[in-house]
Amino acid sequence: MLTGFRTFNPSQNTWNTEEYFPTSEVALAEKLNTLSLAQSIYGKLSAEARADFLMAIHASLEQRKEHIKTFYLKESGLSNPRFETEWKRTLTTIQLFEQYLRNQYIFEKTEEFPSDSIRIQKVTLPLGPVLVLGSSNFPLAYSTAGGDTIAAFAAGCCVLVKAHAMHAGTSVQVAECIEEARKTVNLPEGVFTHVLDDGFQHAQRLCLDERIQAIGFTGSFKGGKALMDLAYSRKNPIPVFAEMGSVNPVVIDENLSHEQQKTVAEKLALSICNDAGQFCTKPGLIFIPHGQTGEHFTERLKQTIAETIAVPMLHPNIHGNFENGKTEIASISGVKFTSSSFPQNGIEGRWALAETDVKTFIEYQRLQEEVFGPFSLLVIYNSKEELLTGLEALSGQLTGSIFYETHTNLVTDCIEMLSRKVGRIILNDVPTGVRVTETMHHGGPFPASSDVRFTAVGPDSIQRFQKYVSIQQKNRT
Amino acid sequence: MLTGFRTFNPSQNTWNTEEYFPTSEVALAEKLNTLSLAQSIYGKLSAEARADFLMAIHASLEQRKEHIKTFYLKESGLSNPRFETEWKRTLTTIQLFEQYLRNQYIFEKTEEFPSDSIRIQKVTLPLGPVLVLGSSNFPLAYSTAGGDTIAAFAAGCCVLVKAHAMHAGTSVQVAECIEEARKTVNLPEGVFTHVLDDGFQHAQRLCLDERIQAIGFTGSFKGGKALMDLAYSRKNPIPVFAEMGSVNPVVIDENLSHEQQKTVAEKLALSICNDAGQFCTKPGLIFIPHGQTGEHFTERLKQTIAETIAVPMLHPNIHGNFENGKTEIASISGVKFTSSSFPQNGIEGRWALAETDVKTFIEYQRLQEEVFGPFSLLVIYNSKEELLTGLEALSGQLTGSIFYETHTNLVTDCIEMLSRKVGRIILNDVPTGVRVTETMHHGGPFPASSDVRFTAVGPDSIQRFQKYVSIQQKNRT
Repeated sequence: MLTGFRTFNPSQNTWNTEEYFPTSEVALAEKLNTLSLAQSIYGKLSAEARADFLMAIHASLEQRKEHIKTFYLKESGLSNPRFETEWKRTLTTIQLFEQYLRNQYIFEKTEEFPSDSIRIQKVTLPLGPVLVLGSSNFPLAYSTAGGDTIAAFAAGCCVLVKAHAMHAGTSVQVAECIEEARKTVNLPEGVFTHVLDDGFQHAQRLCLDERIQAIGFTGSFKGGKALMDLAYSRKNPIPVFAEMGSVNPVVIDENLSHEQQKTVAEKLALSICNDAGQFCTKPGLIFIPHGQTGEHFTERLKQTIAETIAVPMLHPNIHGNFENGKTEIASISGVKFTSSSFPQNGIEGRWALAETDVKTFIEYQRLQEEVFGPFSLLVIYNSKEELLTGLEALSGQLTGSIFYETHTNLVTDCIEMLSRKVGRIILNDVPTGVRVTETMHHGGPFPASSDVRFTAVGPDSIQRFQKYVSIQQKNRT
Repeated sequence: MLTGFRTFNPSQNTWNTEEYFPTSEVALAEKLNTLSLAQSIYGKLSAEARADFLMAIHASLEQRKEHIKTFYLKESGLSNPRFETEWKRTLTTIQLFEQYLRNQYIFEKTEEFPSDSIRIQKVTLPLGPVLVLGSSNFPLAYSTAGGDTIAAFAAGCCVLVKAHAMHAGTSVQVAECIEEARKTVNLPEGVFTHVLDDGFQHAQRLCLDERIQAIGFTGSFKGGKALMDLAYSRKNPIPVFAEMGSVNPVVIDENLSHEQQKTVAEKLALSICNDAGQFCTKPGLIFIPHGQTGEHFTERLKQTIAETIAVPMLHPNIHGNFENGKTEIASISGVKFTSSSFPQNGIEGRWALAETDVKTFIEYQRLQEEVFGPFSLLVIYNSKEELLTGLEALSGQLTGSIFYETHTNLVTDCIEMLSRKVGRIILNDVPTGVRVTETMHHGGPFPASSDVRFTAVGPDSIQRFQKYVSIQQKNRT
């Protein structure tokens, strides 16, 4: 007998009534067979036909918007405006990839060598079925019909989505839209497969299934590394693109004007606390200059953040991890800790700030690691050299930001340092709010992502799921 | 005390007189420091400046051609014409990559979002220092100034070459050319580093050194997988591109005309035996139709191959492995074995052919694996279905060829099957003789290469050693 599971409503602090059942082993085996057959058909479709499929998914989602929203809100505790933002982002991604396919950006090149009667055509082909694991913090944009799924479809890969257990209902709704779209454009069953699981069992098993040819994941380092290890342990290792989070360092330059100190502090406070700071690009580390600029900035940051109203986190587990993370940070000697005094009567993500110096920051590994939620560590630096030492201590990051008034040496040196450490350098802006465009790179050196050469956002993300094949033809003379 | 080592002269069946010494641990540590410093300078050069460096290497090599040739011939036993071919290929690669850099093909894209005063520029940056391990079978084209090194330089990466012990002298000569070129264009010491070693110690240590950011390798599965494992075991895993060989299946279609049966057999005999069959693209497996076409083809193949003169293999070890490989194949029941009766008075690679049916081929894993040298396995198929079953049994391959007169269903089905299994599909030609062009894909699904998404040949191979970074700038309004 399979045990059912329920999703949690963070806004109400109660469990939702719907019951979901993990896909059975028998059903999973059947689905994998169907998927495998479908790949041989879907993989041969033209870019145009794949674009039609994406367009149909877009239309189908639009029609079911209100229904999806209901599940989204009650399974995530996220706000109505946040739903609208994420909804728009999800649909924009689909549209962008659709246009990309129609504009024939998919690589194909032919050369003729008449003297040898040889013609070589280099084409892109899909890797094969892709396993996509829904994320906890983006129930739409990085889940069932999110960036990984759409990139894989665009590449010509069939997709198997393992829904995130926290958003099972949202995922089922979106999955039905994709299935509807598949039928509309007359694609065979198996082009899209949806699987439910309350634990890690299916993900682990699927990672090792030889029909799965690539993996897309957004989540924790622990989860991502476990998938990488499994995929690497296979007789034939397969590519895994895991986006595994980041502390996203921010540097405040001493030369910031009084007015800018205020504006930047306010922007950062919002970026830390928005949607309970549950973003992989949340600024979790701010390097602040010792002295007046830094003090004024810090004061304003604290004032603004103190005014923010705590909102529920995605799930009691995530809330629990956040509380533990804060406790870990607060227990480190040499760290000054301030946190919201908001009474904890639910699973609200109460903001916290910690302050330390560069020496302590470098000494304690935990300070260099992510605390998922509305938390940021302020590190006071005394000189450019000290600042660079602090940045140097960091492992790979998704983003790095610098706020400055004039382009000083410090800015130049920081950009250089960040170009080794991060996937996106942001000048005078916050890291949250990733744009889905052709120039966006969302990834970074390990452990921010599993492979620094690929992006999770934008049409270039299709390359994660494609391979090249040359077809060389000798014509008889 | 370091022990010196010597290289072997296969043509003379004697050891060469020059003595080489493994780079000491102390020297290696110093070289790594210098390399690391050089990366911060070389990595910032323009594509134009990198092109100048490649041009200087080209010029420097040209000047030392005769000297390099002397070492090449006495350290490989390869022929004069083969030297000329490989020499040309090495220089062509350098020229092609130089042009590629000058034509500004290196990706860079900018988007403006005026309504938000945001500008995003996506650029490519070098991964960092690349470790290149010289191959045994291409002392020039896949070694010191070979495809991996030139691709890494083009990408903006400093290169550390660990010479193949069999070609230490050739490698030292080429290394001196690169150093000369480096000085000509005023690049700092450390842009290129050359290391000698008689064993695996340095390669293993370098694989784990945190300053090394990527690895290029051409060689055996055992060697490539060992490097992959080491690179993956690092705290921060790094990309490895390992090209690990292949059996390169060839399919003979039944509809081949009498004339074509003869021509194809002759072409294949040459492709199997040329330079003692020491190519990763050597056709090591030929699917032959049961019946008259197959019999005539096989007869002609055997006649031609019997007339070939055995030439020395690269090294006694390689010769020993080849002899062992043949013994392993010959010992499998259900395999008919024919080999050259040429007396073994040296380390000549004496050709061998084996014949079996699809059933036996599928049953014995060893039959599906490479025998490096002038050997090919002939597998007789009774039907299209049986042929496809045989192809299906294969793991990832660099190439797959089909010889046919008319484009039958069998051809269509083979192309489809091969598109899943190989990196290059060849219609009516042999797999040896890889062209260095933009449309060439040299790689394939694991275990032919470590990552199916990249190529070892052509300008696209630069992508193995590059990453993307987005620079997002908010302009104050």
